[in-house]
Amino acid sequence: MTALTVRQAAERLRAFDNVLVLTHLRPDGDTVGSAAALCAGLRALGKTAYLLPNPELTDTAAPYFRPYAAPEGFTPERVVSTDIATTALFPENAKPYAGRVDLAIDHHPSFEGFGRENVVRPSAAATGEIIYSILAALGPITAEMALPLYVAVSTDCGCFAYGNTTARTHAVAAALLQTGIDFQAVNKTFFRTKSRKRLALEAAMLSGIEYHDQDRVAVLAVPLSLIAQVQATETDAEDLSALGGQIEGVDCAVTMRELRPDVWKFSLRTGPRVNATRACALLGGGGHAAAAGCTVEAPFQEAKRRMLEAIAQTAPDFTL
Amino acid sequence: MTALTVRQAAERLRAFDNVLVLTHLRPDGDTVGSAAALCAGLRALGKTAYLLPNPELTDTAAPYFRPYAAPEGFTPERVVSTDIATTALFPENAKPYAGRVDLAIDHHPSFEGFGRENVVRPSAAATGEIIYSILAALGPITAEMALPLYVAVSTDCGCFAYGNTTARTHAVAAALLQTGIDFQAVNKTFFRTKSRKRLALEAAMLSGIEYHDQDRVAVLAVPLSLIAQVQATETDAEDLSALGGQIEGVDCAVTMRELRPDVWKFSLRTGPRVNATRACALLGGGGHAAAAGCTVEAPFQEAKRRMLEAIAQTAPDFTL
Repeated sequence: MTALTVRQAAERLRAFDNVLVLTHLRPDGDTVGSAAALCAGLRALGKTAYLLPNPELTDTAAPYFRPYAAPEGFTPERVVSTDIATTALFPENAKPYAGRVDLAIDHHPSFEGFGRENVVRPSAAATGEIIYSILAALGPITAEMALPLYVAVSTDCGCFAYGNTTARTHAVAAALLQTGIDFQAVNKTFFRTKSRKRLALEAAMLSGIEYHDQDRVAVLAVPLSLIAQVQATETDAEDLSALGGQIEGVDCAVTMRELRPDVWKFSLRTGPRVNATRACALLGGGGHAAAAGCTVEAPFQEAKRRMLEAIAQTAPDFTL
Repeated sequence: MTALTVRQAAERLRAFDNVLVLTHLRPDGDTVGSAAALCAGLRALGKTAYLLPNPELTDTAAPYFRPYAAPEGFTPERVVSTDIATTALFPENAKPYAGRVDLAIDHHPSFEGFGRENVVRPSAAATGEIIYSILAALGPITAEMALPLYVAVSTDCGCFAYGNTTARTHAVAAALLQTGIDFQAVNKTFFRTKSRKRLALEAAMLSGIEYHDQDRVAVLAVPLSLIAQVQATETDAEDLSALGGQIEGVDCAVTMRELRPDVWKFSLRTGPRVNATRACALLGGGGHAAAAGCTVEAPFQEAKRRMLEAIAQTAPDFTL
């Protein structure tokens, strides 16, 4: 793959026109915000730039995407992808462009370099940080660029709370806030708003927590009956495994979600004492040391028993 | 009051020695982190500096405070206060110093300027931002100063999520992270850890939410019976009014906590449609447009009815 510096990427973009920007499957704040900011930056240079409509756009991200959505029949000269690690993550309508991406911009360590030319910065907390650098090399950062960039950066680092946050992340945020954007509205939408159904799910999970191993292991369950009772959507049930990770004194949070009757998807979030990926590997799964998962086909009690035994096998001082 | 610039305050501190630093009642991350960082900065200049022990120190803040706690019998030449708006917020053991504070450093708009000399910056998200500027004027910021400063700054701006966050706040955070501190441990302790009792309180509150006014008003109750059942401490029950403020579609979150039998403390968190302070004023309370409170002596149903009527009187399109 041909790797470009930020400055080279800026020069390429200065020469482009009629640009189509691609976002990934299950679009998050980073892909949407990065792509929208790039469009805003290109338009500030007098160019025509659009986002390829993304069929899975969420309600929260839509306001940042819509102003740049390509009209039907738009024929691009140039194609750029933002925050897409592999063409396997292209939405269906982006597949025709898989072989003709002129510039791919991404921050994932697993980035496959599928573009004709590529910019990759695995140290960046968000692709938005890279886009910021590119746009800053092209001209002044306006509020139109800063707002979606703030969405991109803040969502990928959990509003500056996650470990991928760096001094650079805060420096970029400082520059974005300098433009006077309403970052508060973004924070409220993405970090301080939960649907009623989501809150009902959380309340039920918290009420039913089971503690094991001297209260160091917590088990939180999301049976199909709960999803049905709350009428929860996939969005409501996203990232529920984070809930158990915040309990004081717990260093192994086990979230078990029933996918189909008696088929349980386990997610483990662990501290240094418990190796999540080793425990999950015993049940055919995998992941990282602090976050891993697996799927077990068994009734609730049996599935839970198997997981607790797998944890016991990998955490030496485990006491049932 | 005599107001100093940051640079003047740095020069005063350079001339001080045997310094005692005071923190406020119910100490939060900002007062503890600011005071600890100031001690670290003064010690880096070869001076003797201590914190006056604070009897209400919390477990989360204690690790940042303890290394600087004054030994019994320490006789200060100079007294500095950090993040204390008024001498009314001096802990009991600080009262003897109320008339002899040499330098008071604070960011509250209500700061009373009780020091012989004072530094006040109401635009700062945290007193920690001011301490950062003062220490930066005195020499290089070390990790020993940066870690408590990160505690001070991040806790007062809700980990960069609150509206008081500014470009300057992020710029300070960038400088602090540059020293290589383990900010992740701080984030986990202060923003991603909840006690089991806290989670039990939240679960019960969420399970019992009542919606009114076309689901735009949510009422969450914390009766004495719930506190007793959970055996919750004051720390577990802190800032529970934030919980209702995150419900999608709700622009008036009412939290009612029973202080004594049939005495309810109301906290309102509202959007632009409802003026919280006007509603609470009808019941003898007050506050800000978006956050206000009052106390009502009445049984639960009656207290709730009075508050809903007060909201109805101030929100024109309210429908019971």
